Amino acid sequence: MNFIQSYYDPQYATCFGCGQANPQGLRIQSYWDGEFATCGHTPGPEQMAYPGVVYGGLIASLIDCHSIATAIAAAYQAEGRPMDSRPPIAYVTGNLNVSYLAPAPLGPELELKAWISQATPKKSVVQCELSAEGKLRARGETIAVRYLWAG
Amino acid sequence: MNFIQSYYDPQYATCFGCGQANPQGLRIQSYWDGEFATCGHTPGPEQMAYPGVVYGGLIASLIDCHSIATAIAAAYQAEGRPMDSRPPIAYVTGNLNVSYLAPAPLGPELELKAWISQATPKKSVVQCELSAEGKLRARGETIAVRYLWAG
Repeated sequence: MNFIQSYYDPQYATCFGCGQANPQGLRIQSYWDGEFATCGHTPGPEQMAYPGVVYGGLIASLIDCHSIATAIAAAYQAEGRPMDSRPPIAYVTGNLNVSYLAPAPLGPELELKAWISQATPKKSVVQCELSAEGKLRARGETIAVRYLWAG
Repeated sequence: MNFIQSYYDPQYATCFGCGQANPQGLRIQSYWDGEFATCGHTPGPEQMAYPGVVYGGLIASLIDCHSIATAIAAAYQAEGRPMDSRPPIAYVTGNLNVSYLAPAPLGPELELKAWISQATPKKSVVQCELSAEGKLRARGETIAVRYLWAG
């Protein structure tokens, strides 16, 4: 199974968070099992808030990009077609709400798990949990808005 | 007038968003006029969502760090003491809520303006607007939680 971002239209492959074509970006990879999307990401040492703790802006970025990928994968599934079919499905972030529950240690892999809690043709609401060392560190809710291609 | 982050305790000067000692970070600088805090930041070309548009994760990061700085500056003011007095005041992010209203063009400076909408001894609610080319692009609400020093 390939990761969701590998199916993104080349026009979107530049995203700092999830674009595989942005060499300075995070290049996260999200996997969809039909119900949940998961993603593992190990931050670089520069991504600190204070020594030993992951920067909250990175956590927000990871939740944002992973949740958008989740919305995309679920939308392909809802339309009964594979992720490499045309036209491509894209979403943009309308609202991002992150609750920081506990500091995330800098070093271990961060684990994200996301799912759709509500979906309409125009937007999806995505729930996301971010854990490290088996403990929940942050919770996110993202409103993903369907992006309609002009072409 | 010096910027708020220049008064941060060295322990916090490592933050990826606002730590002046993190050479790979954003090193944002926020200025407090007694009522509003302002910050200008010009993203690097790698900080794109798609070509010509600023990455939303960067916008969330800027709103987060600038809003925390705002909470800190306002707390010193409420206590009637300068920002270089001891003990240092620190806040962490409890919740970050960002609404993306319009794409922000990649290139021009992003302008942030923040203020306190509610404050208790334990936490402050910070409103933040992010504009580019004179137009509002995103709005943030941050719950900043007072961090109590162990020492």
